[in-house]
Formats: sequence, C-alpha cells, structure tokens
Amino acid sequence: MAEQITHEAAFKALNAGAAKALELDEPSSLAILDQGGNLLAFLRVGDAALSTVELAHNKAHTALSLRSPSGSWMDLVQPGALYYGLDNHGGRRPYVVFGGGLPIRDGKTVIGAVGVSGGPAEKDVAIAEAMLSALGTS
Amino acid sequence: MAEQITHEAAFKALNAGAAKALELDEPSSLAILDQGGNLLAFLRVGDAALSTVELAHNKAHTALSLRSPSGSWMDLVQPGALYYGLDNHGGRRPYVVFGGGLPIRDGKTVIGAVGVSGGPAEKDVAIAEAMLSALGTS
Amino acid sequence: MAEQITHEAAFKALNAGAAKALELDEPSSLAILDQGGNLLAFLRVGDAALSTVELAHNKAHTALSLRSPSGSWMDLVQPGALYYGLDNHGGRRPYVVFGGGLPIRDGKTVIGAVGVSGGPAEKDVAIAEAMLSALGTS
Amino acid sequence: MAEQITHEAAFKALNAGAAKALELDEPSSLAILDQGGNLLAFLRVGDAALSTVELAHNKAHTALSLRSPSGSWMDLVQPGALYYGLDNHGGRRPYVVFGGGLPIRDGKTVIGAVGVSGGPAEKDVAIAEAMLSALGTS
Repeated sequence: MAEQITHEAAFKALNAGAAKALELDEPSSLAILDQGGNLLAFLRVGDAALSTVELAHNKAHTALSLRSPSGSWMDLVQPGALYYGLDNHGGRRPYVVFGGGLPIRDGKTVIGAVGVSGGPAEKDVAIAEAMLSALGTS
Repeated sequence: MAEQITHEAAFKALNAGAAKALELDEPSSLAILDQGGNLLAFLRVGDAALSTVELAHNKAHTALSLRSPSGSWMDLVQPGALYYGLDNHGGRRPYVVFGGGLPIRDGKTVIGAVGVSGGPAEKDVAIAEAMLSALGTS
Repeated sequence: MAEQITHEAAFKALNAGAAKALELDEPSSLAILDQGGNLLAFLRVGDAALSTVELAHNKAHTALSLRSPSGSWMDLVQPGALYYGLDNHGGRRPYVVFGGGLPIRDGKTVIGAVGVSGGPAEKDVAIAEAMLSALGTS
Repeated sequence: MAEQITHEAAFKALNAGAAKALELDEPSSLAILDQGGNLLAFLRVGDAALSTVELAHNKAHTALSLRSPSGSWMDLVQPGALYYGLDNHGGRRPYVVFGGGLPIRDGKTVIGAVGVSGGPAEKDVAIAEAMLSALGTS
C-alpha cells in the first residue's frame, strides 16, 4: 500500500515552500491535501493576498481530484474544447486550470496534492515543486 | 503599521458616494469592506436594483482579495487568457471582473476596499473614486 | 400605499444609531433592511466584534420576516414550546430570538427593519429604538 | 496599533501545538486565523479524524468573532438561556460552544485566534494554550 503523508512531512513541505517563496520574493499561500482531499496543512507566507487562501486550496483540490497538474487542464476546458465546463464540476470547490497545483505521488499512486498561490503561475509551480522535493516525491 | 478605516471615515465615504450617485443620476449600492474582508458600511442609494446589493459587495471583495481594481481582471480571465476561470475562485463570494471595485490603500498597504454597483461600469468607477477621495486615499 | 424608506432616512438612522452606540459605549453593527428584506444600509460602529456583522443583519431579517421584535420569539422557540425550531426556517438567514431586531412600521404596515448587535441585548434594543426614532417611526 | 501574526510565528505555534498533541497522545487539527478571520495556518497532526478539520477552523472562527474562548458560550446558548440560538449565527461557519477555540491578543486587541479539535475539550484547550504560549501571548 502507498504511504500516507505524515504531519511531520507536511510540516517540512510547508517549511520548504515558505523558504522558496521568500527566495522568490513572492508572498504565497501553501496548501497540502491528503489522499482523501481533506486539508492536511496550510500556511500563508509573508503578506500574501487574501485571494491566495482559496486559490491554493482549490489548486491542490484540482491536482488531487484530477491526478494531474492544475495547469495541464487549461487548454482542455476552453470554449469548444473537449472538456469545456469541467472546471465547474469540482464539487465542494471549483477546479483551477492554471499552474500551482501538483499531485503528490508515491510511485504511481497519488497520495495527496500541493497547491500554491501567490504570484505568476510559474513561480507558484516552482514553489510547489520545492514542496514536492521536501516530501521526497516529485 | 497601516491605519484601519474608522466608522466615521466609512460614513463620510458613503455620503460622498451617495452625492456622486445622485449627481450622475445613477441609483447605486455602495459597499465598504475592512482589511479582513468584513463588511464595514453599506448604502443602497436611490432606487438601485436589488442585483446591486450583491454586486457592490462582490466588487469590494474582489478589489480587496486581489488588491487591484475589479475591472483590471477582465482580460486575464477570458477564454484563452492566463487566468481563465480565476473569477470562480473567490470563495465565499465570486470575483467580479468589470469595474466598480477599488482597493483602499494606506501607502502601499491595502486596508480595505469599496465596491459600487448601479449603472454602467464607468459611472460605478467614478462613484468609487469619489468614495476613495472622501477617505483621503486614492 | 405605505412609504418606502429613502436612503437619506436610512443614512440618518445609521447616524442616530452610531451616536447612541457611542453614548452607551457599545461598539455595534447596525443594519437596515427594506420591505423586501434586502439590505438598505449598514454600519459597523467603533470596534464592534466581527460576530456583530451577521447578527445585526440576521436580527433585522427576523424582525422583518416575522413582523415583530426579534426578542419576542425567545419563549416560543424553546424545546417543548409552540414554535420549536422556527428559528431555523429563515431561509437565506436563520432567525435570531434575542433582542436587537425591530420592525419599521408606517402605520400598521411593516416597511423594513433594523437590527443591532454589539452588547447586551437591552443596549442593542436601545440603539435600535434610537434608529426607529430617527426614521420618524416607533 | 496591534501587531499582525507573522507566518513565522504561526509556524512556531503549529509546531508547539503538534508537540503538545503528541505529548497528550491526542491526534488533532490545529488552525490559526488572522485578525480578519482568514486562514493563516493549519496542521492536522497524527491520525486526527476528518471531523477535526472543520471543527478546528470553526472553533478559531468562534473565538475570533466573539472575542472569547469558544467554550465560554456553552451555557449562554442553551434552551432558556440569554443567547439561545446564537451558535447558528456565525455566518460562513457556525459557532462552536465547547472548548478549543481561543482568541490571540496583543494587549487588549484580538489579533487572531487558534482552534484545536481532536480529543476531549480539556485536551483541546491545553493544546490551544500551548499554541498561544508559542505566539508569546496568553
């Protein structure tokens, strides 16, 4: 069976994400969800805007539920594209289709997700990757 | 640290907004949020439509959470644009991406927001700016 | 036909409520609803707790919807009493059954409601009555 | 004016709360809200039940909004008591009236709140107090 993410690991991932956010000078919210989509850890770093609280959580929800990076859905949900409207079907939270949400894998199994919101999407992704590294996954 | 908006200042801003709405002959709802996004003051002026109650509040929520004028997001959330779908991720309230919501700043710090809904967006913005002037910010 | 509450009258009522709240040294939220139950005016006075924002609005909603002071329902909704559970049936907002919500009447017709939340219920009622006086009703 | 809670302080408080939860052998969720009621930090420690995610957040919401420990409201909202039903008027989240939510103060000013959910209320309170100590408040 795949591993669960411990709170110690989550805590380390928050720490790594915060360090990366400060390094990039990008105040950000960091969210980590467990395999069931329930909140495991969260930190609003620096003076991140209030919008980032929901966005970080929603990005992690997206990456977990769809088992793929949030940004990978951008083209597919456009008007006229294959999954137009999919982003509205996240249930308790809508899906985000720009970057910053990444699934956490143990081998091939998705065991959780991270979501980052703060600056331009490429910085969000860089911070999310730093969190995955701290979790010993990628 | 930045100042909080007093109720006396909020009251003056409602008054200034009401005067501007009457001058422009545009019945409007006026909302003011504090730094945490909680309602500080509200006035529905003239015979403003019921839709304006939520819209004014949502515009202020947008300007506060995203720290920018609500209308500045219109292009960015369009199909094919960088933040397509962002407007659905406001949490308790969706974001409005047309004009009428403006952040209230003390220097560089966002300490609240105003939201105006009534007429065409340019009139809403003019009324919102009158409210900011009354608050001694801009 | 009964009169509607103008925004000028609502503004005066907010002003009178704020003065009374300061006189009683009781930071409070003040809400005024129109005949249809939609928000007409609101002011958070002094350093009123965040809880008061919803409570003031909900008290006004109660007084308007039930056409009676919010506090008059306390005994009737108790376990074993005639209308047990009624307080959960307010629709968009629950009903409050302690003091601070009062209907605004024009003759016998309820044309709106005020709701006040801040301190002990008797102060809330005193502030609500000051708002009704300013509206020229009682 | 009062200080805001930095993310470093929040992080330390999560750490202290986690240590206390392990010491008491009580898997728990820990939530920290800022002055405006927006999520600042969260950690689910050990194998805490899913119910604790919402409860921890709601307890912090209660302590912040009502500026008092969540458990201090238990008697006041009972049938026949002064504020019967108050717990339903928390707005976006209901109020919790048992222990585990505590306001964070800077002098007399409430600048945030912690909420803990896991075990019996007295353990939740002990963990919440450990978090306040780590924040340098009490």
